[in-house]
Amino acid sequence: MSALVNPVTTWSQTSSVKDFQEETKSSEKIPTFDFKKYMLEKANSVNKALEDAVSLRDPLKIHESMRYSLLAGGKRVRPMLCIAACELVGGDESTAMPAACAVEMIHTMSLMHDDLPCMDNDDLRRGKPTNHKIYGEDVAVLAGDALLAFSFEHIAIATKGVSSERIVRVIGELAKCIGSEGLVAGQVVDICSEGMTEVGLDHLEFIHLHKTAALLEGSVVLGAILGGANDDEVENLENLQEILGFLFQVVDDILDVTKSSQELGKTAGKDLVADKTTYPKLLGIEKSRSLLRN
Amino acid sequence: MSALVNPVTTWSQTSSVKDFQEETKSSEKIPTFDFKKYMLEKANSVNKALEDAVSLRDPLKIHESMRYSLLAGGKRVRPMLCIAACELVGGDESTAMPAACAVEMIHTMSLMHDDLPCMDNDDLRRGKPTNHKIYGEDVAVLAGDALLAFSFEHIAIATKGVSSERIVRVIGELAKCIGSEGLVAGQVVDICSEGMTEVGLDHLEFIHLHKTAALLEGSVVLGAILGGANDDEVENLENLQEILGFLFQVVDDILDVTKSSQELGKTAGKDLVADKTTYPKLLGIEKSRSLLRN
Repeated sequence: MSALVNPVTTWSQTSSVKDFQEETKSSEKIPTFDFKKYMLEKANSVNKALEDAVSLRDPLKIHESMRYSLLAGGKRVRPMLCIAACELVGGDESTAMPAACAVEMIHTMSLMHDDLPCMDNDDLRRGKPTNHKIYGEDVAVLAGDALLAFSFEHIAIATKGVSSERIVRVIGELAKCIGSEGLVAGQVVDICSEGMTEVGLDHLEFIHLHKTAALLEGSVVLGAILGGANDDEVENLENLQEILGFLFQVVDDILDVTKSSQELGKTAGKDLVADKTTYPKLLGIEKSRSLLRN
Repeated sequence: MSALVNPVTTWSQTSSVKDFQEETKSSEKIPTFDFKKYMLEKANSVNKALEDAVSLRDPLKIHESMRYSLLAGGKRVRPMLCIAACELVGGDESTAMPAACAVEMIHTMSLMHDDLPCMDNDDLRRGKPTNHKIYGEDVAVLAGDALLAFSFEHIAIATKGVSSERIVRVIGELAKCIGSEGLVAGQVVDICSEGMTEVGLDHLEFIHLHKTAALLEGSVVLGAILGGANDDEVENLENLQEILGFLFQVVDDILDVTKSSQELGKTAGKDLVADKTTYPKLLGIEKSRSLLRN
């Protein structure tokens, strides 16, 4: 399990992106914002909130399965982006927390379904056996469905201190990241292009924009809306995240062919075996690295 | 395909539950509300709205798969209940329509996932091959996920003339019907009890309350909230629907063992083959019929 989700250090002082902005505005000194500390702190808050949101109750099997994947670690990048965007425009962590948990539930359910034997047929995820290996395919499908539905319930029920107008907007934005114009679109085109010899960069970008970037971008948009951002602020943050999401995917593709399963916490080389369309497959490792640097 | 969804007659006059109430208030004559006509009329409106809501667009395969199951007929009982509840408390069909479409999307996705080989492994649904038989298991899982997400998006984006407070409440209520306290809870307990010899009526009621009654009840609650009902009105309609939902399930269980696949439009006798816990299994056909009459 990554050190990011099992920190051995705790901090007495709460830092936020807003504090950082104030700090850099009011002095000429080199910024002291500690990104790693911020990540760890937010991952801790998110893990606690997720633990509370999906408690162990009847029917036991489905909640065990949901919790198995949801609480299995992970860097909590999406929730962190959601909270950071909220704080950046002047909101509080607590305002964004239900949406932050929701994006992690969606990310987890998409991994659970993508790992199924009828999809990517993966045995390892976040350093542990995949959900269906433990609970069976039927329960893994249902637990994913339950997480998907619960993510919306959680935003609707648990978000406090924000107008209902903004909550409705957040729900619409989140849903759009998931369905046939988001995660699902990316996954279905990815599956259909396995083994294809003639796949261009446009095609690859479609997959990544939908399969990976959509929810990363969505996390930022949700946080910004909840934090009270105006339309321009939402759009600027969305554009910034689009670039970061693209870089994230190129790195992920490169790691799949250069790192071991142990280092990744998931099966390495899976993209190669499934003959998936990736940046290294299209451009080679060196050109992919060069794309990243540019 | 059932005559209910392929009507050959059209009506020039729009009837509604509200019209019926007015009619019975203002005269002593025998009520003339034509339930079958009302059902047909609402099924037509819902079919049109569903056709528009999930249009055929890129990526083609996922939208084809979503539309294959969503537009395959069906009596549209849940949307009709949603619209009827809305009209009963003074609202319009158009106000309830996005939610009415949403409950049908949820119902359809639950059938698509329940039919999967890893679940009930069913080949026939609404008189046609099941989704995975046509599009493959991977696409059937993803199309179900997309419908689930889109149901929330559709309510959030397309509902007009209702306060955002009520829309947020509707989204929370719908999500609760689906997840680990609704449809999924019923299905997971149903799957886990297949082949069990010691299953009581309590256990069976849990399955049906969650797997069938939850979304029927939810449809009524959603419509009532959108129509402007107060809390007492919502509760009264919910209680009435609870009884109707129970009767619906007993009838469905009986039909599974007494009708042919052709008559049902889905595989008959599946409950028996899977050794599912049903009212006929627990009580026998005659006692189940007597329960229904009581």
